[in-house]
Amino acid sequence: MVKLDFAKGDGLVPAIAQDWKTGEILMLAYINEEAWNETLKTGNATYWTRSRKKIWRKGESSGNVQKVKEIYVDCDEDTVIFKVEQIGGAACHEGFRTCFFRKVEGNMLKVIGERVFNPDEVYNK
Amino acid sequence: MVKLDFAKGDGLVPAIAQDWKTGEILMLAYINEEAWNETLKTGNATYWTRSRKKIWRKGESSGNVQKVKEIYVDCDEDTVIFKVEQIGGAACHEGFRTCFFRKVEGNMLKVIGERVFNPDEVYNK
Repeated sequence: MVKLDFAKGDGLVPAIAQDWKTGEILMLAYINEEAWNETLKTGNATYWTRSRKKIWRKGESSGNVQKVKEIYVDCDEDTVIFKVEQIGGAACHEGFRTCFFRKVEGNMLKVIGERVFNPDEVYNK
Repeated sequence: MVKLDFAKGDGLVPAIAQDWKTGEILMLAYINEEAWNETLKTGNATYWTRSRKKIWRKGESSGNVQKVKEIYVDCDEDTVIFKVEQIGGAACHEGFRTCFFRKVEGNMLKVIGERVFNPDEVYNK
């Protein structure tokens, strides 16, 4: 297994999910060693949620899993990129393709993304 | 000023530097509130180094500054993307265009990036 430096971030390493075809950055989440190993084993992006403090199999409730096509590791081995195919077309729980759907314009945040799904319909069905 | 959620990460928020033209992810570093404000004010990517525990004006020693063209903020306001023009063509202190110059292949890391500069020449001149 490829080893990462989990010590620097108290057991967590940030993982950037990037669309494997367009290069668009979809989201950033964290992985611990268990999530890393599970991602390598299953080929589905698996994270650790800091708020719920547990393994987070992305797409388990929404169906929007991320198929990991390639993984890149940085020079310090404390950050990774998952190049993914985002099933369902939306990575963000708010229904946008990317979590980065807002751009800084002056002192404001301007929504520039478009909603792919309505979160109320996906999570409460 | 646009406010970010610095509390969740003990005062730090990850900032992803992405090439503004090609979409290539160059590096990930951290910002505190001071670095965030300085980035907004100067237009040059400014970080906080966790190892040296101080403000890090990227490119101050190497000359390889990052001109921030656009900034995106995620849904939780705890991660940002700096779309940058990387002066000198290399973001990584090891001389590669991107810090993510290695790819996971089986149980190995394979170098797939090409060196833009020799770090010995740039940092010890």
